Amino acid sequence: MATSSSPIQPPFISTSISINTTKPQTTNHLITINFNFTSISCSTSRSSRTIINSASKTLQNDTDSSLVETSVNTIRFLAVDAVEKANSGHPGLPMGCAPLGHILFDEVMSYNPKNPYWFNRDRFVLSAGHGCMLHYALLHLAGYDSVKEEDLKSFRQWGSKTPGHPENFVTPGIEVTTGPLGQGIANAVGLALAEKHLASRYNKPGHEIVDHYTYVILGDGCQMEGVSNEACSLAAHWGLGKLIAFYDDNHISIDGDTDIAFTENVDTRFEGLGWHVIWVKNGNSGYDEIREAIEEARSVKDRPSLIKVTTTIGYGSPNKANSYSAHGSALGAKEVEATRKNLGWTHEPFHVPDDVKKHWSRHIYEGRVLETEWDAKFATYENKYKEDATELKVLISGGLPVGWEKALPTYTPENPGDATRNLSQQCLNALAKVLPGLLGGSADLASSNMTLLKMFGDLQKETPEERNIRFGVREHGMGAICNGIAHHTKGLIPYCATFFVFTDYMRPAIRLAALSESRVIYVMTHDSIGLGEDGPTHQPIEHIASFRAMPNILMLRPADGNETAGAYRIAILNTKRPSVLALSRQKLPNLKGTAIVKVEKGGYILSDNSSNNKPDVILIGTGSELEIAVKAGDELRKEGKAVRVVSFVSWELFDEQSDEYKESVLPSGVTARVSIEAGSTFGWEKIVGRKGKAIGIDRFGASAPAGKIYKEFGLTVEAVIGAAKTVC
Amino acid sequence: MATSSSPIQPPFISTSISINTTKPQTTNHLITINFNFTSISCSTSRSSRTIINSASKTLQNDTDSSLVETSVNTIRFLAVDAVEKANSGHPGLPMGCAPLGHILFDEVMSYNPKNPYWFNRDRFVLSAGHGCMLHYALLHLAGYDSVKEEDLKSFRQWGSKTPGHPENFVTPGIEVTTGPLGQGIANAVGLALAEKHLASRYNKPGHEIVDHYTYVILGDGCQMEGVSNEACSLAAHWGLGKLIAFYDDNHISIDGDTDIAFTENVDTRFEGLGWHVIWVKNGNSGYDEIREAIEEARSVKDRPSLIKVTTTIGYGSPNKANSYSAHGSALGAKEVEATRKNLGWTHEPFHVPDDVKKHWSRHIYEGRVLETEWDAKFATYENKYKEDATELKVLISGGLPVGWEKALPTYTPENPGDATRNLSQQCLNALAKVLPGLLGGSADLASSNMTLLKMFGDLQKETPEERNIRFGVREHGMGAICNGIAHHTKGLIPYCATFFVFTDYMRPAIRLAALSESRVIYVMTHDSIGLGEDGPTHQPIEHIASFRAMPNILMLRPADGNETAGAYRIAILNTKRPSVLALSRQKLPNLKGTAIVKVEKGGYILSDNSSNNKPDVILIGTGSELEIAVKAGDELRKEGKAVRVVSFVSWELFDEQSDEYKESVLPSGVTARVSIEAGSTFGWEKIVGRKGKAIGIDRFGASAPAGKIYKEFGLTVEAVIGAAKTVC
Repeated sequence: MATSSSPIQPPFISTSISINTTKPQTTNHLITINFNFTSISCSTSRSSRTIINSASKTLQNDTDSSLVETSVNTIRFLAVDAVEKANSGHPGLPMGCAPLGHILFDEVMSYNPKNPYWFNRDRFVLSAGHGCMLHYALLHLAGYDSVKEEDLKSFRQWGSKTPGHPENFVTPGIEVTTGPLGQGIANAVGLALAEKHLASRYNKPGHEIVDHYTYVILGDGCQMEGVSNEACSLAAHWGLGKLIAFYDDNHISIDGDTDIAFTENVDTRFEGLGWHVIWVKNGNSGYDEIREAIEEARSVKDRPSLIKVTTTIGYGSPNKANSYSAHGSALGAKEVEATRKNLGWTHEPFHVPDDVKKHWSRHIYEGRVLETEWDAKFATYENKYKEDATELKVLISGGLPVGWEKALPTYTPENPGDATRNLSQQCLNALAKVLPGLLGGSADLASSNMTLLKMFGDLQKETPEERNIRFGVREHGMGAICNGIAHHTKGLIPYCATFFVFTDYMRPAIRLAALSESRVIYVMTHDSIGLGEDGPTHQPIEHIASFRAMPNILMLRPADGNETAGAYRIAILNTKRPSVLALSRQKLPNLKGTAIVKVEKGGYILSDNSSNNKPDVILIGTGSELEIAVKAGDELRKEGKAVRVVSFVSWELFDEQSDEYKESVLPSGVTARVSIEAGSTFGWEKIVGRKGKAIGIDRFGASAPAGKIYKEFGLTVEAVIGAAKTVC
Repeated sequence: MATSSSPIQPPFISTSISINTTKPQTTNHLITINFNFTSISCSTSRSSRTIINSASKTLQNDTDSSLVETSVNTIRFLAVDAVEKANSGHPGLPMGCAPLGHILFDEVMSYNPKNPYWFNRDRFVLSAGHGCMLHYALLHLAGYDSVKEEDLKSFRQWGSKTPGHPENFVTPGIEVTTGPLGQGIANAVGLALAEKHLASRYNKPGHEIVDHYTYVILGDGCQMEGVSNEACSLAAHWGLGKLIAFYDDNHISIDGDTDIAFTENVDTRFEGLGWHVIWVKNGNSGYDEIREAIEEARSVKDRPSLIKVTTTIGYGSPNKANSYSAHGSALGAKEVEATRKNLGWTHEPFHVPDDVKKHWSRHIYEGRVLETEWDAKFATYENKYKEDATELKVLISGGLPVGWEKALPTYTPENPGDATRNLSQQCLNALAKVLPGLLGGSADLASSNMTLLKMFGDLQKETPEERNIRFGVREHGMGAICNGIAHHTKGLIPYCATFFVFTDYMRPAIRLAALSESRVIYVMTHDSIGLGEDGPTHQPIEHIASFRAMPNILMLRPADGNETAGAYRIAILNTKRPSVLALSRQKLPNLKGTAIVKVEKGGYILSDNSSNNKPDVILIGTGSELEIAVKAGDELRKEGKAVRVVSFVSWELFDEQSDEYKESVLPSGVTARVSIEAGSTFGWEKIVGRKGKAIGIDRFGASAPAGKIYKEFGLTVEAVIGAAKTVC
């Protein structure tokens, strides 16, 4: 172990393998002087890593510690200048956390700026996403192409790569989308869990192919949010020793001193959660303390570490430091000037001094080395463990194994009816056999949501290779952790489950999944009043509509076995959007006319006895009410009507079809339309039109046996027939 | 202070005042023997209370401890029998918590069964709402008319007073609606905060008019939910010494042993939060330990107490106790039989033994005494503090002071434009002067949401009489706490605030407000892409639609000063539903044609140059986009068109108008309609019809100055004019 004053260096895997890269031409004194790697082993439970400790010399002499100071001030002023130019943003956090940011990106983390997606990189999450200029400044210094000087200058502008909060889908180098507080730390738990899971599945003795840390900075706001407590409780439960969280303890939030609303003892709470807790009292200039803390955190391998770093928000600003006025708006020209003077910063806005530039330039070279080393290591691994390597490569690339779809079960009307939650379990278990990236679980409702993968055990601290995740009653944490898993490795396909009504608890995480293009599958059972006796607190009403209104998410409500399998097929294939599957608690028959592949159209004709695309009436149903539409159709046909029954399993998918297709299903000339769905009718007017009728529920539910509620609420065959006769 | 073996008795205020009630005829030995109150003073910071310690004798002899045991088993079997009859429900918690339930309702709590709404009652919340048969059984034994034997027998049936989870709007005696985990404990924080607030405002030395405890039982599930951590952090911050929470520590959740997902140290976490923590190791039969713990908790006055009570779920069931199988379904006839045998219970289902009945019957009498005593005490108070008493009476009755509406500000187009968030602050400050029950705050965005009441200070531990609540970054806890405040006293009108997009974080609490008929006002600012640079993580898109789809809630999006004031008027007047006010960050002009009173119609004609209810086109806008509709209307009129401009501030209110009124605003003959709203167009088809056009945003937002986003997204006057020409 290096001494406490040593900086921690990127973990070079080995020095003995030939490196097929070009050394940078700059006379970077750090590299030129010290590129004789001294290997120091830090044994971990699963790996040994090599640390470059040569730079310790550098930091022991005055010149270089002044260079560090210059680098830190560069970070501060890049943030200050960008916020000032945008006249919008959050300078306070970057100014306070610049020392920590410098140490992490310059001394600690392994990454390759020219390939932000290099698989074995350390992950960094800025949970306090409003401070994103810190991250952008660091990416810029480290040499990421995504954040050039012009990008810093267009901070928060239309079309820029530097939006107001970090967006993974806009800026390579950003792992997850943050801003809504508490999400990032929970995402980081997911990233660290994914690492531990994959490491335990794929690493072999002497072949630590999956081996990286997850670092996260969170602030007072993140600490106050319940979702962070949920996720951090799980992080300790899972023993995520390679998760290191920095709590930017600056005592300031938007409303002022945190004393007005936040007086708990965070350290004690985290000890209660089971974390290792370290306090760096001087985060403003205690570089060595920060380094020591990181070393200590890395040495604790059986649980995550929280490093509380006490900083001054807006550090350096003579009149706004340590005040909420440095938090969320530009300092103003006068104060920027005063801050420049105060910190002795004589440079123009956005200027990176040459020595800082030179110093950081080595990361491009070192990053290339790191990745090349890892590639070589992987090649050796692949030689020895062909099958594992192949599987891992598929996971990394995000490809799907050939023929995976064939694993999905198909059904005929002769198959006995079943609840779609049970059919969902059949799909999950079928898919888990062919999709190595499928893993997930429920928020303490596995036996109700039917989400257990029977061939796997529980993913626990000592069995991280398993694929059943037990989230406890923590829907929000579950959702955010799944976002982290999804963004760790393209081929990981997390699913998570609770009662549909409790999507409310995890809505911020679901929205971020949609925004950040996460392929997460939400297995949401007990999807209507059909759950019966638990009553209105447990019965979703407005939820289907609320997801149909949300951008970039698929809301699927399958009606039987084939549609459930079809919904899974869609959910897997849509790599850039999440899917919500609303599933029944109650038994449903397998209907004639359904098929896996039909689901992709969103809406399709299930049965029809009309001709020339001119039915007398179109009956439209989803999920558990499609059966009712079918029965009503049968009755009406007996009375001589030409009836079309349409399954409307996903509005979003239907919307994406061609106009011709849509016209073939819902001809504009046929205004006699009746829909039935055990949920809010909000939005259905679009489908049934003014002359049609939407049968649904525009009140809260009730506690009673399901059949009774259906009847009392008028969700019946008779009601559909009655409505059809009215509109015809 | 009574000795540790003493039971705690209801706090009789005084024995010297004559009691105008009739003593029950039953020969209740507890009362007949011991009705000579021995007063023991327990001084608190604000009050002194008198405790009856006579019953200690009772519990020191064998007969009575056996009676307690019988009472406890009665509670257990009422729960077992009701669940069995319904073949649905949760017997495990009531069986494990029956001893605690007995002590609370028989020995500790002050209440009046014949007036469940008696103001100064102790509040009890079953946060683990699935165990509601515990609460129903206790209400039944205590003599509440809401839970008769037939009600127990119709547990979970259509129209019963005993739904599957506790619903305050169905069952008098239930304070708040619980079931969704974590909500109840947070509601309890709100109830206890309301008590502390009102006590500090209205109590005078020697006149403790507001003086009760709040008790809550929460389970492992509640503990895992983030919302409980948020609320409990605030409870300690506010020093809610009269909040006593019992953590039913039974180590079982639905998925099995809590070890699979919940291994944190809850005690340490709560100590970190600032609570006093007590552990009762034997909650199954340690009656005296429970009593001692409650005494200790009551003696700690500067912070809330968590009493961890270790119990056995399904206690008494030989084969299902201590297992998840006792949690959420009927035991089954065979196991019920075995449990009866095991606990020596020879009675028929639903039987309450005579001695138990007799024992509990005194609560009707005692409750009447308690209330009468309090009435007398209030009369003395009223004599001395007329003004305070009058105000408090208004708060208790829920009435509104005469003429309060006149306080609302009105505006003319000559008034300079302003953001509706600022106009909202003017309303809040105007209303706070005339509505003594208005109090609230923001989740750390007070200066952005503009929610500070300028004439008041911060409601803090030492200044609980103030009315600005600082919730910290805890939206979910905030929402749930406000539900508690709203249900404490009818006249309390809590408001709470954050950015509109973060309603996602508090959606479960908002839904429960809607379901449980809580008058909570959600002040939701930054209501669209109009917030600009913060970007898509902060820009609501689907949120308006998602609330329009939710039952029993008003979604209001005012366009200017008058509409904002009108929205507040509606929010105050709707005592049985919450209101969401979506407010702009950006400046908006005061429009010609708006008026406070017009908001009550939901949609109304702002301007019109047509005749005979036949405009060429109807332009419909809400909030910040009404201005755009107005400008487009002006342009179109210049071109000779007959244009009606409609403000559509609340769909729900418009829906409630007569058909005639609706036809007068949106004549069915006019299909040329264009709507504009900076949010999802989902649902607008209902208003504009197939031939109309809805201008909105069906994608996520972007980070850029607001004006730029409006332009890029096509939310412009030109777009409305273009659309109008298309549809005309």
